[in-house]
Amino acid sequence: MAARILSAARASFATHGYAGTSLRSVARDADVDPALVSYYFKSKSGLLDAALVPPPGWSEAIATAAATPMQRRGVALVQTMIGAWETPASAEFMRSTILTAAHEPIALQRLATNFAVHILDAVSSRLEDDERLVRASLAATQIVGLAMMRYVWKVGAIATIPSNQAVALVAPTVQRYLNGKLAGLDE
Amino acid sequence: MAARILSAARASFATHGYAGTSLRSVARDADVDPALVSYYFKSKSGLLDAALVPPPGWSEAIATAAATPMQRRGVALVQTMIGAWETPASAEFMRSTILTAAHEPIALQRLATNFAVHILDAVSSRLEDDERLVRASLAATQIVGLAMMRYVWKVGAIATIPSNQAVALVAPTVQRYLNGKLAGLDE
Repeated sequence: MAARILSAARASFATHGYAGTSLRSVARDADVDPALVSYYFKSKSGLLDAALVPPPGWSEAIATAAATPMQRRGVALVQTMIGAWETPASAEFMRSTILTAAHEPIALQRLATNFAVHILDAVSSRLEDDERLVRASLAATQIVGLAMMRYVWKVGAIATIPSNQAVALVAPTVQRYLNGKLAGLDE
Repeated sequence: MAARILSAARASFATHGYAGTSLRSVARDADVDPALVSYYFKSKSGLLDAALVPPPGWSEAIATAAATPMQRRGVALVQTMIGAWETPASAEFMRSTILTAAHEPIALQRLATNFAVHILDAVSSRLEDDERLVRASLAATQIVGLAMMRYVWKVGAIATIPSNQAVALVAPTVQRYLNGKLAGLDE
């Protein structure tokens, strides 16, 4: 029941924003009594908080990928993200967080905390801090762009090719950002 | 006056979606009489149509970048997109189209038409159609991911580095997708 409410809340925050969502509208979308929504989540902000918590295993999977031996780390990260997008519970969480982040600062902050930290861990800690932050951020641009095109918008050839092909095509870019030579960093 | 209304409409479609936007709410946001909104744009769908039309010069700039000699094309495309994001009128258009595309199929369709066509033109027409579509789509993932992180979410180091550094870091990826060797395409 709580899961059904959370699912309706995630869809509503993503589409209508925080202002356009109410306990009552979520109850209606989930087809439950509004009292149940209050019982499980207390308030609208409680509902948003819950919506922004990753499903079990999500963080651990990314952390594991980020700790793979460096020469296979790009593949591991892209494979893990694609796997998460192809699992309904985590896909719903990511889709909602990405879309809500566009208009709710708290969602953006959570996205940054939950996701950027793991990507930063994927960059060698022997590098200077400035360089690590730029490399992590570059890897994130490629992972986010892949997610938008393939899973959020579902447009273009990248949305329809098999996942192992998508990994083979995109992982080298992530790998290059993690530890490859980058012209823009040697200036 | 029409520009102010359009600007309010773009912000509203992006944040509240098509369903959450009305001629009246846009008039209020733009601080004009609702009759004026009707006068300029006829209906809500007229307003959405107008909001999804790129500002003058936007398409031409991308088309020019896509026609740059191949060895400099990655740089030209990334430079042009960053330039467009750093110009208020085109940034407002792109931001609105990207955010509206998440929930309005017509916005997604326009995004695909306006943008994907130029990126496809950037890939050598001597390649097979299947390969051209995958390459264009990959280039788009990087351009979209950069836009999301640097301009829509404004998160991470990629959001704060100077634009010439962002171009130097990201352009080689776009270039590789346009005409580089891609393991995932040789299978």
